[in-house]
Amino acid sequence: MSFDPLQAWRLDEEPYYAPQAEELAAFEAAHALRLPVLLKGPTGCGKTRFVEHMAWRLNKPLVTVACHDDLSASDLVGRWLLDAQGTRWQDGPLTQAARYGALCYLDEVVEARADTTVVLHPLTDARRILPLTSCNELLHAHPDFQLVVSYNPGYQGMHKTLKPSTRQRFVGLEFSYPGAGQEAAIVAHEGLVDASLARQLVAVAEQTRRLKEHGLTEGASTRMLIHAASLTRHGLSPRVACLQAITCPLSDDPDLATALAAAVDASFAH
Amino acid sequence: MSFDPLQAWRLDEEPYYAPQAEELAAFEAAHALRLPVLLKGPTGCGKTRFVEHMAWRLNKPLVTVACHDDLSASDLVGRWLLDAQGTRWQDGPLTQAARYGALCYLDEVVEARADTTVVLHPLTDARRILPLTSCNELLHAHPDFQLVVSYNPGYQGMHKTLKPSTRQRFVGLEFSYPGAGQEAAIVAHEGLVDASLARQLVAVAEQTRRLKEHGLTEGASTRMLIHAASLTRHGLSPRVACLQAITCPLSDDPDLATALAAAVDASFAH
Amino acid sequence: MSFDPLQAWRLDEEPYYAPQAEELAAFEAAHALRLPVLLKGPTGCGKTRFVEHMAWRLNKPLVTVACHDDLSASDLVGRWLLDAQGTRWQDGPLTQAARYGALCYLDEVVEARADTTVVLHPLTDARRILPLTSCNELLHAHPDFQLVVSYNPGYQGMHKTLKPSTRQRFVGLEFSYPGAGQEAAIVAHEGLVDASLARQLVAVAEQTRRLKEHGLTEGASTRMLIHAASLTRHGLSPRVACLQAITCPLSDDPDLATALAAAVDASFAH
Amino acid sequence: MSFDPLQAWRLDEEPYYAPQAEELAAFEAAHALRLPVLLKGPTGCGKTRFVEHMAWRLNKPLVTVACHDDLSASDLVGRWLLDAQGTRWQDGPLTQAARYGALCYLDEVVEARADTTVVLHPLTDARRILPLTSCNELLHAHPDFQLVVSYNPGYQGMHKTLKPSTRQRFVGLEFSYPGAGQEAAIVAHEGLVDASLARQLVAVAEQTRRLKEHGLTEGASTRMLIHAASLTRHGLSPRVACLQAITCPLSDDPDLATALAAAVDASFAH
Amino acid sequence: MSFDPLQAWRLDEEPYYAPQAEELAAFEAAHALRLPVLLKGPTGCGKTRFVEHMAWRLNKPLVTVACHDDLSASDLVGRWLLDAQGTRWQDGPLTQAARYGALCYLDEVVEARADTTVVLHPLTDARRILPLTSCNELLHAHPDFQLVVSYNPGYQGMHKTLKPSTRQRFVGLEFSYPGAGQEAAIVAHEGLVDASLARQLVAVAEQTRRLKEHGLTEGASTRMLIHAASLTRHGLSPRVACLQAITCPLSDDPDLATALAAAVDASFAH
Amino acid sequence: MSFDPLQAWRLDEEPYYAPQAEELAAFEAAHALRLPVLLKGPTGCGKTRFVEHMAWRLNKPLVTVACHDDLSASDLVGRWLLDAQGTRWQDGPLTQAARYGALCYLDEVVEARADTTVVLHPLTDARRILPLTSCNELLHAHPDFQLVVSYNPGYQGMHKTLKPSTRQRFVGLEFSYPGAGQEAAIVAHEGLVDASLARQLVAVAEQTRRLKEHGLTEGASTRMLIHAASLTRHGLSPRVACLQAITCPLSDDPDLATALAAAVDASFAH
Repeated sequence: MSFDPLQAWRLDEEPYYAPQAEELAAFEAAHALRLPVLLKGPTGCGKTRFVEHMAWRLNKPLVTVACHDDLSASDLVGRWLLDAQGTRWQDGPLTQAARYGALCYLDEVVEARADTTVVLHPLTDARRILPLTSCNELLHAHPDFQLVVSYNPGYQGMHKTLKPSTRQRFVGLEFSYPGAGQEAAIVAHEGLVDASLARQLVAVAEQTRRLKEHGLTEGASTRMLIHAASLTRHGLSPRVACLQAITCPLSDDPDLATALAAAVDASFAH
Repeated sequence: MSFDPLQAWRLDEEPYYAPQAEELAAFEAAHALRLPVLLKGPTGCGKTRFVEHMAWRLNKPLVTVACHDDLSASDLVGRWLLDAQGTRWQDGPLTQAARYGALCYLDEVVEARADTTVVLHPLTDARRILPLTSCNELLHAHPDFQLVVSYNPGYQGMHKTLKPSTRQRFVGLEFSYPGAGQEAAIVAHEGLVDASLARQLVAVAEQTRRLKEHGLTEGASTRMLIHAASLTRHGLSPRVACLQAITCPLSDDPDLATALAAAVDASFAH
Repeated sequence: MSFDPLQAWRLDEEPYYAPQAEELAAFEAAHALRLPVLLKGPTGCGKTRFVEHMAWRLNKPLVTVACHDDLSASDLVGRWLLDAQGTRWQDGPLTQAARYGALCYLDEVVEARADTTVVLHPLTDARRILPLTSCNELLHAHPDFQLVVSYNPGYQGMHKTLKPSTRQRFVGLEFSYPGAGQEAAIVAHEGLVDASLARQLVAVAEQTRRLKEHGLTEGASTRMLIHAASLTRHGLSPRVACLQAITCPLSDDPDLATALAAAVDASFAH
Repeated sequence: MSFDPLQAWRLDEEPYYAPQAEELAAFEAAHALRLPVLLKGPTGCGKTRFVEHMAWRLNKPLVTVACHDDLSASDLVGRWLLDAQGTRWQDGPLTQAARYGALCYLDEVVEARADTTVVLHPLTDARRILPLTSCNELLHAHPDFQLVVSYNPGYQGMHKTLKPSTRQRFVGLEFSYPGAGQEAAIVAHEGLVDASLARQLVAVAEQTRRLKEHGLTEGASTRMLIHAASLTRHGLSPRVACLQAITCPLSDDPDLATALAAAVDASFAH
Repeated sequence: MSFDPLQAWRLDEEPYYAPQAEELAAFEAAHALRLPVLLKGPTGCGKTRFVEHMAWRLNKPLVTVACHDDLSASDLVGRWLLDAQGTRWQDGPLTQAARYGALCYLDEVVEARADTTVVLHPLTDARRILPLTSCNELLHAHPDFQLVVSYNPGYQGMHKTLKPSTRQRFVGLEFSYPGAGQEAAIVAHEGLVDASLARQLVAVAEQTRRLKEHGLTEGASTRMLIHAASLTRHGLSPRVACLQAITCPLSDDPDLATALAAAVDASFAH
Repeated sequence: MSFDPLQAWRLDEEPYYAPQAEELAAFEAAHALRLPVLLKGPTGCGKTRFVEHMAWRLNKPLVTVACHDDLSASDLVGRWLLDAQGTRWQDGPLTQAARYGALCYLDEVVEARADTTVVLHPLTDARRILPLTSCNELLHAHPDFQLVVSYNPGYQGMHKTLKPSTRQRFVGLEFSYPGAGQEAAIVAHEGLVDASLARQLVAVAEQTRRLKEHGLTEGASTRMLIHAASLTRHGLSPRVACLQAITCPLSDDPDLATALAAAVDASFAH
């Protein structure tokens, strides 16, 4: 077998993912058409894990980029680098994915600068091209290439948004936290704790999510519950583990901290 | 036949385009005079496809640039690059188009920085020149060169605009969504679905476009209908395909999402 | 005859220009004293053409720079460039004009950055010098050098202005649209149409200029009328040509668009 | 023993640290899971010292980065440097810590730019990877690597904050000033003064901390008390030492300065 | 005689200057002490000419820098340049003046960036040093070096100002327009017109200066009167010359333009 | 004796300084502990002179940096420079001071950018280290190194401030203008005038300082009085010298200028 430039981006093991609804079939239909996909949902509800799982199911490498305010088009596309061997062109992660045929996942895409999202346009319509103006190449995307982006409308919507000419190129999938039973199963599986403790942790999370109406930016994610579960396996009581993994990171506001601590106390006696 | 530096920008097949009115004749008159053309219209109504179609009809290469906030004059005009062979001058896409005689299409031109639009001025009046100050050349445009720009007045007009001294150099063509019958024909042709489903999808789109009065930034484009149509060919029901291709990408607002879902439900029973 | 570094900037043919008033004598008096000249007037009323005409009359090369937000002092003055032969100093357009004796025309000068206008100061008083600090040269302007700048007070005055210490270095000439008869003659001459159509087009323009009181940024320029006239020679009706060359570029506002269309309809029956 | 690239970051002596509560066990549980840790607490209460102490207890090198407004992702991750031997890649402190297995401590993390915190994301979830795009390497973190960040919610919370998708990756530990008896013991130990003077200094600090309700940004830290104690060993009276080490640095406001001086006078007669 | 690095900055002829009061003696006293001097006054009242005159009287070279928003410390101090001979250090104009002993005149100093004014501090107190950190040199100013700065408090004071720690290093001289008789003598001398026309022009200027109370940013400067006078020698009537040299440059406001034209008409019959 | 890299920063003569209170002992106590020192006080009251005096008393070189808005961390710490010999690392002034053991004085430290103050943190606590990330060195400060910073709370406090985590690392000394008798002695000594004139000048200064309540940013500094005194030795009357050295630089406001002139007239008859 020949050299695989995307080897580092392949997934060796099946990432654990518990399907919530029809999202597997929906993604596969979009993938069959190579339509770009937009994932919406709150922090830590499993969007990244879902993309990893789909990449594994479809047996495709997965190139992931965490977007931010300073992410520029050339961070995605590539640049001429001055290194020890002199100057050489270096494909950016988007170019690598388009050239060799990977899923390319842009996490929190609304955080990126405008030039970054516009560079996606010719890749996400019928043309499927990426003009590399700096090295004078018009790259036609590999047949396997597919773009996936995500964002959290509850948080990001306050600050930034995608412009319509970008949004309308994507098909969308909406995510939320799993149902209580399923979430407890995930926490038990990933946190290596018994079902009873997992259910108690999910009950804490549900209380924190209700605090969004009282000013909390985001409720506890499934990831936080797994953290709390794991800490109990290293000698912390469930209550202390929750304060450490959930209450303390979630908010700096004294009133919200008190409400969060009360949610913990309601589940776990001292 | 000699080397063609614009080969990569030529169109091999006729791009599908269903004329709406006199726009073909209007563009050809402007092209005969090589007057720069300004296309106005909403997202996804077919402006880019129209320019591709005209380039094919006129048998001209088409150099396309998606404009954005950080697009600078030298991104269009060119720069000295440090590459593996040392420094060399690299024409930007506008310079290539002007030097070798292409249509140059600047998509969403109002997004570009001011220096980018001003660099167009001497190319868009009787002089038809492009001063390449960095490599000391005063380029006279090729007789075949013509500039085309586009923007969406409904969306962009809120933020940015072209200044009068730029606008007045262009002749303008106004685009909107095609009529219902024609749009259904396009959706059937491009989405490979039957006429009846295409008409139902157009009915959904028309409902979403009426939501602009209720705060929706843009209604569903023809492109979105083609996406929805295509998804039904991969196992999704029309209703699920619409939610995924239309409702979810169009808005993050819960009230608008409900209204969009109702528009889908009105066309497609559960 | 020896090499002429300004050859590319010479005008081969007399640029067509119809004098409006005493502006030829006024410019010649300022030129005799080499006083810098400031041209004020609306978009497309003929300022650039006037400068071209004067350069031709005075038999001087004309170096033109379109100013914009990102135009820096070194864009005008010059810089060290890294090119295929190594580093070399490259005079900017202002330096070329000052070194070899050209008219230097800065179009829309109020758009330039502050450092750009201040660099003009020692060139525009009795010293007539340009310090090239980067290459350690104090350039004394060629006796033929003269600076001309322009701007549109109706539009630019809302945003930016020249500071008094810059303005007071210039003598000023004020431009407006030519009288109706003269404008019709220009349109007929440049658009290659008969006098009757030219007069109708001027009547349309006059109506649009009255719309400035109703919110239109700028009325139709003479250039737009020439565009419309030319389009009629390529198969468009005068009405369609006006909508395309005048109405559509002038405004995105629906109410103004209706008023502009009415102005066209008043001149041209369906 | 082989070359240790983190040698400079190892601690030779046990850093003095007086535990306040369960924080040692809590940190050790998080360390066992290599979960990233977030320390919250006021200026000078001992967060940095605690991390140094834990690094010493766990026998790990400690790479510390003081964050600020201009700290960019490449400051943490690394860059190509042009030095006397030509170009070479230089790991940033975060990369060094992840490559060779250190605790990496980002002090005042909320001060850093957004791109800096987002670069932490793939290092702080199950992937534990750091993409070094500039040198084309996907670094898998060393098993010993653990990330620790800190901030002061009382001060920073007014200006900046971590976004939820960052916060939820961390487990948190909350710090405050030690109790009076313990703080006096620390001041006596570190300032080399007797217990009685140490208690008087703590009494001054407690008064200043109450002034937070009257507009003082931060009360006196334990560090300031140690400064004051040390100055008395070099000939200053306790009162003068307090004015110099506590009152003068704490505030520029005349009213607060008077109140602070009164707090000093209450403890130390003239 | 040896090479003089400041040769280009020496004045060959006595610059014409008509003293207004004690400013010659005042400047000479400050020069004897090498105290830095601050000149305040309106645009075009003769500050630059005064400094040129003093440089000629004191037989010192005069290095002049026009300050602006983008003037950085290294523009004044110097930088390493990459030129055709490789890299070399290039003294900026301030460093040249300090190293070889010139008057250094910073025109419109309040326009410069903060780092530019702070770099002046060690040069303008008893130390008289200029640290050239980039080339590792601590330059002690030449005994002949003296710094002069100017600004226009009427105009600049609205936007920017010098900070007290900068101002207090200077001794100040205040300038205003010369008295009517003296100004007419200057206009006659410099504009090469007779005394009667010169007096009429001064009368126009005085009217325009009164318009400052009605919103005019600055009244006509002596320089403008000289322009108007000169234009009459090239065939323009005094009235037309005034409109061109004074009215048109002074304001874009229609009401002020009318008032300015009336001031001209009051002096010169049609 | 070996090469001394700080030779240029040593003081050859004792800088004149008249102690006001216990500041010499206070500084010496802080120096004995190498605690960083913060000097607060108005413009021109002698802070810089005090630091010079202490450096001379302690026989330490003094590296001074005037801080400003654009002062970056690498301006203090150092950078790789491209010079005539190729690339080489150049220590910044802070690094030089820390490496070879100098007092490092950052004048007007609140003006510096945030990254500049944060770089001071590891140098100003028990660690006394300076990480030079660009050249991969962890510099341990020389035992003689001590940091001193200053600012003017009356002026700077309005705009910027040090954050608590920076302030609390310093011990503070507060400065104000000397008492009238002492100030007159300083003016007589430095300005080389007799005691009677010196007392009159101090009376003027005291009047101007009272004008702070009426909107004057800063009253006259001792430095200004010395300027005025010196000018009288070069032929100016005391009144003219005061107007030039005090009134004119202090304010551009006409009302304040009148009040300042009255203060001068009160001391010196015409």
